[in-house]
Amino acid sequence: MSRFEVNILGCSAATPTMRHLPSAQVLNVRDKLFMIDCGEGAQLSFRRAHLNMTRLGHIFLSHLHGDHCFGLFGLLSTMGLTGHTGEVVIHAHPDAEQIFRPILNYFCRENPFEIRFNSISPSMSEAIYSDNSVTVRTIPLKHRIPTCGFLFEEAESQRHLRGDMAQFYNIPTYMRAAIKQGEDYTTPEGIVIPNSKLTLPPTPSVRYAYCSDTMYSPRIIPYIEGVDVLYHEATYGDDSEPFARQTFHSTARQAAQIAQQAGVGKLIIGHFSARYKDENILLQQAREEFANTELANEGMKIILK
Amino acid sequence: MSRFEVNILGCSAATPTMRHLPSAQVLNVRDKLFMIDCGEGAQLSFRRAHLNMTRLGHIFLSHLHGDHCFGLFGLLSTMGLTGHTGEVVIHAHPDAEQIFRPILNYFCRENPFEIRFNSISPSMSEAIYSDNSVTVRTIPLKHRIPTCGFLFEEAESQRHLRGDMAQFYNIPTYMRAAIKQGEDYTTPEGIVIPNSKLTLPPTPSVRYAYCSDTMYSPRIIPYIEGVDVLYHEATYGDDSEPFARQTFHSTARQAAQIAQQAGVGKLIIGHFSARYKDENILLQQAREEFANTELANEGMKIILK
Repeated sequence: MSRFEVNILGCSAATPTMRHLPSAQVLNVRDKLFMIDCGEGAQLSFRRAHLNMTRLGHIFLSHLHGDHCFGLFGLLSTMGLTGHTGEVVIHAHPDAEQIFRPILNYFCRENPFEIRFNSISPSMSEAIYSDNSVTVRTIPLKHRIPTCGFLFEEAESQRHLRGDMAQFYNIPTYMRAAIKQGEDYTTPEGIVIPNSKLTLPPTPSVRYAYCSDTMYSPRIIPYIEGVDVLYHEATYGDDSEPFARQTFHSTARQAAQIAQQAGVGKLIIGHFSARYKDENILLQQAREEFANTELANEGMKIILK
Repeated sequence: MSRFEVNILGCSAATPTMRHLPSAQVLNVRDKLFMIDCGEGAQLSFRRAHLNMTRLGHIFLSHLHGDHCFGLFGLLSTMGLTGHTGEVVIHAHPDAEQIFRPILNYFCRENPFEIRFNSISPSMSEAIYSDNSVTVRTIPLKHRIPTCGFLFEEAESQRHLRGDMAQFYNIPTYMRAAIKQGEDYTTPEGIVIPNSKLTLPPTPSVRYAYCSDTMYSPRIIPYIEGVDVLYHEATYGDDSEPFARQTFHSTARQAAQIAQQAGVGKLIIGHFSARYKDENILLQQAREEFANTELANEGMKIILK
């Protein structure tokens, strides 16, 4: 199963509105769930997206502003009530444990799973998580407080074993895993069949980058170059460019300029200020710079694979 | 303006569902707003109910379980962003300040208003707030942790000045306030007109009681006797009566028995367990004990006056 999907649970800026909830996303990578940011109300959007909470093991917080983490307490409480076991790791700024631990100890003391904090340094890019499906790297962003984005790189898939060849050489089942990993096949008669004859190349791996919150910062380009999908904040439109700079946010046009310069496949803009009753003006401005742009929306599912 | 309204923002039990949000209510008493409990998502429901956040000065927390207070951080942050000034008082168990202050200091340090904690003792009944419109008293409840309900008693209204008499005696405007408060009127000729001839009795004051979370506890009856409206938790139905007792919650039938014994005007049941996909079974069981029962629902407005 090589699924790689991004579910948008919330894409408002600091003040949620009737149309948008605070920042939260859930990635489904080969049926493991990874959460990015956890704004208030995330637990309900999680269910609304028909995602299975028991598959969630890692939560990545971009920064410690309330609209990116106030949903954490409710989500973790509900995970406790619904019998989540094992461990949940919160990858966040070093302050997070000191700030959140007392409240989690007080309210979630009966939770049947461990909550572990993994301190990350938002000022540098480093691999903070890796398993056999995905590697997660931080992307240093430029905001009012230490903030990082996240790059999710899918691990390389196995080669595809050609059905016709498997049948032709009558390759035993127990040998197929090794062949998918690149080994040649030696027939019972001792003839070596090269792997290239037996398999097709793996489906290319995909990469997803999340960049919120940040002001326009071309320094992030090397980290996100050529990703399949970039989510970049676009809090404001051209009308508020000076205000965007002042508050360390981006305009939709600036987000698209980053996408253009980084040569990404597709741009999703989000983190919309409550002042825009209709974000199509933001979409229009972004598309002037980078055509393949879409507006984020609650309930949106981006299928990379 | 003698308005007295209760807005239900959330009436689920600990696990919110697609239909119900965690506990939160807002009372509008003569255009001042008072919040009871503040479950996750309360800030959005607040707006959805077209209530004006700038009129909110007091938040009353029944107990420190997450489903009754995890909306506090987001609400207070948004109040800061939307320019609330002055002071917000959180009336809660003494632990509240120790638990919440660090997180509020971290996330809401730029808020332009003061947040003050008023420690209440859930084990006794006492007046914890009073102004010229309303007095709020605690109601000791019986739950797993220290918990209290709240009784809102409207202050006595002024007497109504009879228009015909005001005209007949040509009573000057500046004297009318005193007459509404019970004074007699002396005409320029020195004749004393008794107040009873000039005014009609005030509209009766109303009382609202909020009792959640609690197991069946007839000891609360003296505190809520004859209130106009009682909100009482009804987490479970008859099917789960032993479980209700075990978790210190009530069944719908028990809530109605309390309403019946206390001779209240109307009962609203809420705090529904997620296991009931249709709460009409709870309503039916409650009505067998107390006919004037209604189900709480998000967006419900109960007009007492």
